[in-house]
Amino acid sequence: MAANEKKLVEQITSMDEDFAKWYTDIVKKADLIDYSSVKGCMIIRPYGYAIWENIQKILDSRFKETGVENVYMPMFIPESLLTKEKDHVEGFAPEVAWVTHGGHEKLAERLCVRPTSETLFCEHYANIIKSYRDLPKVYNQWCSVVRWEKTTRPFLRSREFLWQEGHTMHRTAEEAEARTVQMLGVYADFFENDLGIPVVKGQKTDKEKFAGAVATYTVEALMHDGKALQGGTSHNFGCEFAKAFGIQFLDSDNKLKAPYQTSWGVSTRIIGGIIMTHGDDSGLVLPPAVAPIQVVIIPVQQHKEGVLDAASAIAERLKAIGVRVKLDDSDNSPGWKFSEYEMKGVPLRVEIGPRDLAENKCVIVRRDNREKAFVNLDELESAVKSGLEALRKALYEKALKNRENRTFVAENLEELKKIAAENDGYIKAMWCGDLECELKLKEDADVTSRCMPFDMEAIGTKCVCCGREAKKLVLWGKAY
Amino acid sequence: MAANEKKLVEQITSMDEDFAKWYTDIVKKADLIDYSSVKGCMIIRPYGYAIWENIQKILDSRFKETGVENVYMPMFIPESLLTKEKDHVEGFAPEVAWVTHGGHEKLAERLCVRPTSETLFCEHYANIIKSYRDLPKVYNQWCSVVRWEKTTRPFLRSREFLWQEGHTMHRTAEEAEARTVQMLGVYADFFENDLGIPVVKGQKTDKEKFAGAVATYTVEALMHDGKALQGGTSHNFGCEFAKAFGIQFLDSDNKLKAPYQTSWGVSTRIIGGIIMTHGDDSGLVLPPAVAPIQVVIIPVQQHKEGVLDAASAIAERLKAIGVRVKLDDSDNSPGWKFSEYEMKGVPLRVEIGPRDLAENKCVIVRRDNREKAFVNLDELESAVKSGLEALRKALYEKALKNRENRTFVAENLEELKKIAAENDGYIKAMWCGDLECELKLKEDADVTSRCMPFDMEAIGTKCVCCGREAKKLVLWGKAY
Repeated sequence: MAANEKKLVEQITSMDEDFAKWYTDIVKKADLIDYSSVKGCMIIRPYGYAIWENIQKILDSRFKETGVENVYMPMFIPESLLTKEKDHVEGFAPEVAWVTHGGHEKLAERLCVRPTSETLFCEHYANIIKSYRDLPKVYNQWCSVVRWEKTTRPFLRSREFLWQEGHTMHRTAEEAEARTVQMLGVYADFFENDLGIPVVKGQKTDKEKFAGAVATYTVEALMHDGKALQGGTSHNFGCEFAKAFGIQFLDSDNKLKAPYQTSWGVSTRIIGGIIMTHGDDSGLVLPPAVAPIQVVIIPVQQHKEGVLDAASAIAERLKAIGVRVKLDDSDNSPGWKFSEYEMKGVPLRVEIGPRDLAENKCVIVRRDNREKAFVNLDELESAVKSGLEALRKALYEKALKNRENRTFVAENLEELKKIAAENDGYIKAMWCGDLECELKLKEDADVTSRCMPFDMEAIGTKCVCCGREAKKLVLWGKAY
Repeated sequence: MAANEKKLVEQITSMDEDFAKWYTDIVKKADLIDYSSVKGCMIIRPYGYAIWENIQKILDSRFKETGVENVYMPMFIPESLLTKEKDHVEGFAPEVAWVTHGGHEKLAERLCVRPTSETLFCEHYANIIKSYRDLPKVYNQWCSVVRWEKTTRPFLRSREFLWQEGHTMHRTAEEAEARTVQMLGVYADFFENDLGIPVVKGQKTDKEKFAGAVATYTVEALMHDGKALQGGTSHNFGCEFAKAFGIQFLDSDNKLKAPYQTSWGVSTRIIGGIIMTHGDDSGLVLPPAVAPIQVVIIPVQQHKEGVLDAASAIAERLKAIGVRVKLDDSDNSPGWKFSEYEMKGVPLRVEIGPRDLAENKCVIVRRDNREKAFVNLDELESAVKSGLEALRKALYEKALKNRENRTFVAENLEELKKIAAENDGYIKAMWCGDLECELKLKEDADVTSRCMPFDMEAIGTKCVCCGREAKKLVLWGKAY
């Protein structure tokens, strides 16, 4: 048993030794993805896709509670449409895939595979928005998008990825701003309460904002290794796209006006964030809300009388209270199974053998800290429920603690450079708001601005870089 | 009221006058789709997409009950991969979209946007199938695919469409055949019991089968106008792809063998089938299982005391029993609302006004036959449930009757030509099995073989075309 376990565990690189290799080992060994001959794209395998389905289910229902309606737009964008909004095309043209031929014929105009769909939504909105009575429009689509990245990593950066993109139109600037903030709140709540990933809500600097947006808000998460991950973004476009696309509505005062626009999205990148926040040297650790299997039941000495029946009964009882459960009654040894489901990050393991059975109990083991609880079978349901909830909380607390340990403060450039050279994490520092200083910090300390946090107090009055008057507190860091 | 109703109804072309125009009117007026500057592709609007979501939800859960696991494959296929299986590439190469550039750079090898994903699944299966213990593999994906069609029509034939494609691998030929038949059965059951669309299950002739398949099974539906629609297909590939892609497993007898493969799919085309089977001159008629709104509640004289409260109470009671319900308390007239929700095909309409309220009743109107029932409010839930069920059955019966009225029998070529010239519908006729006769029927009578039905008895012994010995009964017809 122990030998088996060891053998499996040895197959992953330790995270302290090589975090990047540890990550790649996990996505392969936990059967999340496979590679194909399509360079830079990934195959999302059943176990990985089931995580995405759970993410979709939760977010989709939260979206719909706020009035979102789902649609589907074409995957192609004609070049002339992509180029209608100047900032937008500059941001995306360098990284799109171009379709030039349909069957044996050359196309009159080339089409790009959507990198994002603002342009298509705007064209559609121009068709269907005529009056203030047609507003707001709060649409979303779940689809795949393509960005021709040079360097790719599963989930974090791939040429094709799955996401949702919400695109909304509003009568007033206030309403658009409120929707932008509302959707960022939906994301933050999902990250913190469902995924156990603490996030900082904040605004992107102009340099880092979305191509064409007036303001980009973000939820930023800090990974176990101290690198930051942009978890989701919500953009306020003002009227710029609407004007470029000629979208106008007749308001109640009989004047033609341009509506105010937002967009917001999260992607399969979330799965990368889960891995890098909660995973350990035995593999994945999944938050219960999105775990394809929340509880795995492993019979011990399963050929002894009554063991398999008892294991099945446990499975049925847990299914009945809505727990996603798997009973592994295969011929593999219990030790092999322990390692396998640890690798796959299953939150709770229930063990039951002849001796447990005789005592009317089972053993429940938590994936995150391997804590064992001997549970009377009469209390199975409540023990599983509270075990899942305790794990969820513990994941959050652990990640929060990691972030606290890795958050630094810098008052001047030398300090910042030293911190950045010695640590990965957030560096809190004041900023004057000038692009030059932002570029200099990148150049000198290899950090980028992650966001200007909504809920953090200023820590000084002078720019960390130039020493002039500071306008904003910025979290700086290295990012995925 | 009556005037309003008339005005709306006049906006659609009558189906008897011009079925094609009636169809296009409905997809636009019921807000199912919109066009964009991407030629041959469609925008699926919220009301249309909600139908697709309901279709997905039902089928996905049926699939999973049979052991299907969802995955996601890249949307691109390298040219060298597409061309690995000879028949397959011949079938698809003429109608694929080619990506030739990523960003500013020309690709070393062009990539097509997937028209279907057999090749990608085979490449993946070659990686992950090593032993008989790895079998069966029963994967499915929900995605969009692209086929560069010359002539397009919303839902029926578009350059991009949404679908699901199942791809499975099995240890034995028998198991693969059983899976092929099983999934055809899932489709047939869904069409008949959920959508109220009667289908004929049968096998495609070699000419009509899928490029690369050994056998293609189909569910064929007959539309209101007598044209046939291929509703879904299930293919048995034998080992041909597996051999072309070098997929081998070590069997328990220690021999390396090629696994047996199937694939099966349905698409957004189903929505076209629903429209053309059940729709009428007032618009859509939706089967309750997939209707985004199953019951619309329309208050009459809604500003009178108690009316809106009563309407809300009805909505809450129906929601509580899981009915998808909408209360329209907008300022539009009841007559306008009646027409609007008839156009949108909402199965049941509940009307409630001051007089109904005084008598503790409401009026329930069925969309299909406009039958009115005066229902005591105490019996609301059971009346709605039985109303939805009655409508479902009635849709099926009506469609079945249409098919019976439009099914003809031909014993020789002259008869068949005469029937085909005078009628649209199925023509039952015997066939020798030769491609020549099949082509001649196309040439002389403009009919194609829809399928060789599983459950129909032979009606003669001689080929309807050449008079030689007949091998199969075939349903001939004109198809979408």
